Amino acid sequence: MNIVKSELLYEGKAKKIYRTEDDHVLLVEYKDSATAFNGEKKAVITGKGRLNNEISSIIFTRLHEKGINNHFIKRISETEQLIQKVTIIPLEVVVRNIVAGSMSKRLGIPEGTELKQPIIEFYYKDDHLGDPLITEDHIWLLKAAEPNQVENIKSITRQVNQQLQQMFATCGVKLIDFKLEFGLDQAGEILLADEISPDTCRLWDQETNEKLDKDVFRRNLGELTDAYEEIFNRLGGM
Amino acid sequence: MNIVKSELLYEGKAKKIYRTEDDHVLLVEYKDSATAFNGEKKAVITGKGRLNNEISSIIFTRLHEKGINNHFIKRISETEQLIQKVTIIPLEVVVRNIVAGSMSKRLGIPEGTELKQPIIEFYYKDDHLGDPLITEDHIWLLKAAEPNQVENIKSITRQVNQQLQQMFATCGVKLIDFKLEFGLDQAGEILLADEISPDTCRLWDQETNEKLDKDVFRRNLGELTDAYEEIFNRLGGM
Repeated sequence: MNIVKSELLYEGKAKKIYRTEDDHVLLVEYKDSATAFNGEKKAVITGKGRLNNEISSIIFTRLHEKGINNHFIKRISETEQLIQKVTIIPLEVVVRNIVAGSMSKRLGIPEGTELKQPIIEFYYKDDHLGDPLITEDHIWLLKAAEPNQVENIKSITRQVNQQLQQMFATCGVKLIDFKLEFGLDQAGEILLADEISPDTCRLWDQETNEKLDKDVFRRNLGELTDAYEEIFNRLGGM
Repeated sequence: MNIVKSELLYEGKAKKIYRTEDDHVLLVEYKDSATAFNGEKKAVITGKGRLNNEISSIIFTRLHEKGINNHFIKRISETEQLIQKVTIIPLEVVVRNIVAGSMSKRLGIPEGTELKQPIIEFYYKDDHLGDPLITEDHIWLLKAAEPNQVENIKSITRQVNQQLQQMFATCGVKLIDFKLEFGLDQAGEILLADEISPDTCRLWDQETNEKLDKDVFRRNLGELTDAYEEIFNRLGGM
């Protein structure tokens, strides 16, 4: 596999994506930047790119082992990994096991309230619109995905939730909520994509409820990399 | 039927609700006030109360005639009507035939875009939270209604949409969108409630697309009562 870093295809808030010499393979470089509130709060945080690259690599590898196909191919440096090229579906798929963040504010339910069963929400991936919550009717209207694709996405999402809950429970971490993205591969099949890291999950210590995720940055709760390093260590990264 | 106006039970932005001497009957008084943007914009508009009382009375009477049960009993004065007492379900049920207002802003779709089929949205009726859009999972979580009640509400809502579209089409008005509320009667049955008026519907002239609803107030497009009077006249109120 040729891993020559070629043309920069896309630069997002936390990642850069490069073409490689293989048409079906992209290179992701995780940046040392943190953003929140749709880009309104920003910072450079040395070490964050490495930690998210490591953590996401561990998680995607374990999901592969559990039979959940995803776009991850392999980690190739401290801050870089190779992924399968997919066409991203413009939906942020959020799973909530415990109420926190925007759900708490939207519905007036206290953070920490346990849900009897996980809730899956869809947000329309559009920075300009502020990634609004949408209903399934809105998905059809926006032609963001087809009904059978959404059913497939929900099914994979429930499996990912079970696997992640187990994975984190064994290292003393509660999985509060998380965001997934999906893409379509060359064959038009749905494939789990993007990243799974403390940037995209809310993770609380099982005993103390200490936050070990991006809320440390959003809410100025301490050193972000300390929290991410803790997650990396607990996942057996060291 | 005794129509002695008794204790004021509730004062909202556009209506006051009084107890009567009949435990199952309430008296609604339509106020001359207009509010928008969750109460941020306010005005006293002389004649608005009378017009909404008249228009809502006409519409609810016609829905009764078409077999759609609702809480309306009878109009008893220029600004007052009697209704069946119900326990209001805390959902604003919005039907959209053509994209406008918050849907246009939320999804980035131009106002006036026709929907292939009507879309029903649920908003959680809570001024403090700003009446947020919610999904059906949120309805269960909030215990706002039971699944069979929501199915029942959707079925009645589709019937109301058909009847209103016909009713307005015959007088040269396009029904863009509207909001319904439902309650539970003494027997626990779902009953269409609240009001149906240019306060709760977007109504555009069939030919000119002139707005004949509360957007005249929201967007400072002219005299609100001229628009409401036009709707009243077209419905055959004069």
